[in-house]
Amino acid sequence: MNALDYFNTRLEATISPMDYLRCAEANPEEYFLMDVRNGPEHVRSVTIKDAAVIPQQELQERLHEIPKDKEIIVYCWDVWCNTAAKAAAFLLERGYKVKELTGGISAWKEMNFPVSDFSAKIHPSDRCGC
Amino acid sequence: MNALDYFNTRLEATISPMDYLRCAEANPEEYFLMDVRNGPEHVRSVTIKDAAVIPQQELQERLHEIPKDKEIIVYCWDVWCNTAAKAAAFLLERGYKVKELTGGISAWKEMNFPVSDFSAKIHPSDRCGC
Amino acid sequence: MNALDYFNTRLEATISPMDYLRCAEANPEEYFLMDVRNGPEHVRSVTIKDAAVIPQQELQERLHEIPKDKEIIVYCWDVWCNTAAKAAAFLLERGYKVKELTGGISAWKEMNFPVSDFSAKIHPSDRCGC
Repeated sequence: MNALDYFNTRLEATISPMDYLRCAEANPEEYFLMDVRNGPEHVRSVTIKDAAVIPQQELQERLHEIPKDKEIIVYCWDVWCNTAAKAAAFLLERGYKVKELTGGISAWKEMNFPVSDFSAKIHPSDRCGC
Repeated sequence: MNALDYFNTRLEATISPMDYLRCAEANPEEYFLMDVRNGPEHVRSVTIKDAAVIPQQELQERLHEIPKDKEIIVYCWDVWCNTAAKAAAFLLERGYKVKELTGGISAWKEMNFPVSDFSAKIHPSDRCGC
Repeated sequence: MNALDYFNTRLEATISPMDYLRCAEANPEEYFLMDVRNGPEHVRSVTIKDAAVIPQQELQERLHEIPKDKEIIVYCWDVWCNTAAKAAAFLLERGYKVKELTGGISAWKEMNFPVSDFSAKIHPSDRCGC
C-alpha cells in the first residue's frame, strides 16, 4: 500500500470531531452515533451528546438497535483505544456503513463539543441546587 | 494487508516531530513545511517555526506556491485531526512527495520544539515591554 | 484497501493498554514487552513495569535478547511517536510476532497502569527516607 492509499483509507474509515459535528448539524438524520466503550458504567457516564450507548461487548445481542440505513459513527475513549476499531470491524463485516470518530470522547471534550451526562439523567436531584 | 505492510506504510506516509526536526536541521532545503489548518486565523496564530501557512481549503488555488522538488510536510492540529490527511491525499494525487507530521502542532508544542507566532509578527508592539 | 481491512490491520498490528494489561496478567509468559525509545537514558528512566529496555537503535546488535516464541509488544513515547513502528517493522521482517502498544508510555501512564523507575533501581538510596 502506498502513502496515497494510506490517507484515502484513513479518510474513508474515520471522521474527525470537527467534521462529524458539522455533518451531523447539517444532516442529523443521516448519522447514528454510538458510544461503544466497555467497563463500569460510572466511569463512562459522560457521553457525546445524543450518542446511543451500546458497549462493544454487547454488540452481538443488540445488533437490532442499530439502523442499517444510516452512517454509524463509533467512538471509545481516546486515539489509542481499540474498542471502536473492534466495533467498526464487527459492523462492517455485517454490511453496516461505519466510521470511527477520531480521538474518541477525549478529543471531543478537548474541543469543548457538547456532551451528555447520563449520571445526571439517572440522578437529576444530584444537580439540583434547591 | 499484514502488520508489516501496516507499519511500512505508516512510516512512508508520516514523519514524527523528532525525526522531522532532525532531518530539517540537517537538510533544510529538502523540506517544505505546510500548516494546512482551516478555520479562523486568530486560533491558529501560533504555527511551527518556518511553516508556510496554506489552509487545506485554499490548496486548489494556491497550488503554485508549493514546490514539486521538495518533500512536503503537512500538519494540522492533533493526532485526531484529519485535515492534514486530506491535504496529503490531495497533493499525492497531483504528484507531490508528501508526509504528514504526526501529532500536528499539539505534539510539536508538547515537545517544546520551536514555533512562530504570526500574531506577534502582525502586532509586534504587543510584545514590546517599553 | 477498504475500511474493514483498515480496522482489521490496525487490530492485528496494535494492542491497547487495557487489552495488553488484561492479556499479560492472564498469560504473562506469552508476551515480551519492549521499551524501544532512543535518546538519553535519564529522560526515559520511567518505563512500563517489567519491560525490557532495548532502544530501537540497538535492535540489530541485541537481537539475540529477543525471544522468537513470544509475542513482542513494542512501545515508545506517545501515539505520534514512530520509533515503535520502526522497531515493529524491523522485527516483523525477521520473523518475529510483533504488536505496537498504542499510545506508548504516555497512554499507559494516563491510565495509571504500573510503571518501573530504573533511576530508582540504579540509585536506590535516592528513595530511601532514612
